[in-house]
Amino acid sequence: MIFDVPTLERVSVDELEALGIGAGILGTGGGGHPRVGKLRIQTLLEDEAYPDSVEVIQPNDLESGATVASVGGMGAPTIGVEKLPNGGEELRALEAIEQFSGREVEALIPGEIGGVNSIVPLCVAAMTDLPVLDADGMGRAFPELQMDTFFIYGHPVNYAAISDEHGNVISYQDIDTAKRLEKFARSAAVDMGGRAGYAFPLMDGDFVTKYSIQRTLSLINTLGQNVLEAQSSGRDPVEVICNVVGGQHLFTGKIVDVLRRNEAGFARGTVELAGLDDDATLTIEFQNEFLVARKTDDEVLVSVPDLICLVDKNTGKPITTDALRYGQRVTVLGVPAPELLTTGAALDVVGPEPFGYNIEYSPLSKK
Amino acid sequence: MIFDVPTLERVSVDELEALGIGAGILGTGGGGHPRVGKLRIQTLLEDEAYPDSVEVIQPNDLESGATVASVGGMGAPTIGVEKLPNGGEELRALEAIEQFSGREVEALIPGEIGGVNSIVPLCVAAMTDLPVLDADGMGRAFPELQMDTFFIYGHPVNYAAISDEHGNVISYQDIDTAKRLEKFARSAAVDMGGRAGYAFPLMDGDFVTKYSIQRTLSLINTLGQNVLEAQSSGRDPVEVICNVVGGQHLFTGKIVDVLRRNEAGFARGTVELAGLDDDATLTIEFQNEFLVARKTDDEVLVSVPDLICLVDKNTGKPITTDALRYGQRVTVLGVPAPELLTTGAALDVVGPEPFGYNIEYSPLSKK
Repeated sequence: MIFDVPTLERVSVDELEALGIGAGILGTGGGGHPRVGKLRIQTLLEDEAYPDSVEVIQPNDLESGATVASVGGMGAPTIGVEKLPNGGEELRALEAIEQFSGREVEALIPGEIGGVNSIVPLCVAAMTDLPVLDADGMGRAFPELQMDTFFIYGHPVNYAAISDEHGNVISYQDIDTAKRLEKFARSAAVDMGGRAGYAFPLMDGDFVTKYSIQRTLSLINTLGQNVLEAQSSGRDPVEVICNVVGGQHLFTGKIVDVLRRNEAGFARGTVELAGLDDDATLTIEFQNEFLVARKTDDEVLVSVPDLICLVDKNTGKPITTDALRYGQRVTVLGVPAPELLTTGAALDVVGPEPFGYNIEYSPLSKK
Repeated sequence: MIFDVPTLERVSVDELEALGIGAGILGTGGGGHPRVGKLRIQTLLEDEAYPDSVEVIQPNDLESGATVASVGGMGAPTIGVEKLPNGGEELRALEAIEQFSGREVEALIPGEIGGVNSIVPLCVAAMTDLPVLDADGMGRAFPELQMDTFFIYGHPVNYAAISDEHGNVISYQDIDTAKRLEKFARSAAVDMGGRAGYAFPLMDGDFVTKYSIQRTLSLINTLGQNVLEAQSSGRDPVEVICNVVGGQHLFTGKIVDVLRRNEAGFARGTVELAGLDDDATLTIEFQNEFLVARKTDDEVLVSVPDLICLVDKNTGKPITTDALRYGQRVTVLGVPAPELLTTGAALDVVGPEPFGYNIEYSPLSKK
């Protein structure tokens, strides 16, 4: 799946505001708050010791055997906004898998385009002078490591590492399943205080070209730019977002209740919305990201892998699960998942059932 | 501290029974049941693909820069007797730290001489043709990784790895404290089902010579041999044990209650003994190993780091915490801890206080 948007070729300070907004919208409430990442990359690009922009390349630009790794942060977003990284976590993790494997990484790819993890690879790229791919492994954000297309489509868990702000590094080698890596690394991230930087796996160019979701850095850039333009021109930002990502306006209302708990390394909970002019309600459950939205009569309106995006009704700015609060006026959008997330193999990992719901996935695109 | 016992130069099948008994006694209830380790090493030594004995060397035999690592198993002993290893766990962990560091290990050392972890290095030695040092890091068994003399006396946590029976390997690099390694690796061992094989840290010959507890493989061999001889000659095995290790006979009684739970990767609990001929009672608390023994009036009779050893009253065979059951007739011995465990630095890590007791350590040797 390749989105039809103008190609982003470099990221400089000028693109950061748009990228943050676009990443926040596709973060479906999670993926970590883009603001923290935006400040990190801005600091680097403005620092004379680092380049003032990062190169973005297409998967096709890679040689077939080129080595690619994804880097990012893992943990509960509610913790990520308070326990700030020291900025070296992901680089240390990357260096660990290079050291362990004896291979040198030639390009970085975001594991997920939603939330801060679209920005973190740009930071590591600025520190290492590596290019970042205009692609990712989720086309959105998901809470668990096995949920990216690399693992869904069978890439071995050959090398992985996580690191904390103290410089501690934990590496994983030849893990039998991606779900087991998730289990191991989640416990470790909890032990590290609820947030850690990661790097994994080591893939080659051919695999990434075939199984990544492409042009997604370009997509969040265009998405953010259009929202900013709508804000300044007085157009309806919600309509603009729907146009760019093929989304549907599902509900507009006021947040009347938020239940939130940190559990086993995740921010889990429920948010309830009431219609502004009628008795309709919408209930959305989340595990870092929004998973299922139900109407008053319990009918499922949208579920994973489709995207449930909450934005400010007036500005189109994304609202993350950690920022949900009583009284906010929000618009809920549904966005069809990229095709690589709706195959049988993908639904076994990112459909409603693996998240614990006894719901059959009914694609939003067919509604 | 060097024990005055005949030197063990090689371990063949002939030594295994004695080693198992000696290791069980110094295991102070934990360290993993020696029986599982004995079967593992016996299988290897009887296999034509491996040597029929393992070389035991003294720390002084090492060149000062020779690379040494400890290998063993971690987890709850109650799980270790049921979830059997596949035998490759420790070797995979060892290979991981060699690969990560680029260094080649030249000798193995038991992390603890008590329980199965005195035997596991012999298994890895048989598989790799490396020698095993006649020394260890505890002179007994303790439940947590930071409790060996290597870490107590300041060795950096440079490299460590653990592995499970599926071949999964988790490596730790430059961990800031040994207690943090314990935290990380304990969670991982729990995720691995409650038992994993480990290898750590990479030390050099000089450090090991200075900070290991020496001649302890020779000690458990002599201890076991003497118990076996006492059994066949009709001498009192308890008296024999006390002679070899400088121990004291504290109590003989019947087990009248056992409380045991698996908690956070450990077997924790309490065992209560009643005197055979009088109203005296003895209560012993344990976390994998026996920690504190109290008399009827709550007076502390022995506490860590001194050893509390339970043996069968008639045969002198050690009784591990996982095997405690109502009605057993047992003798309780107290054994003074090696000097390296009773310094200020050591008591900060293995004294009663770090185990959560508000007790001042009163050395058994002075009672």
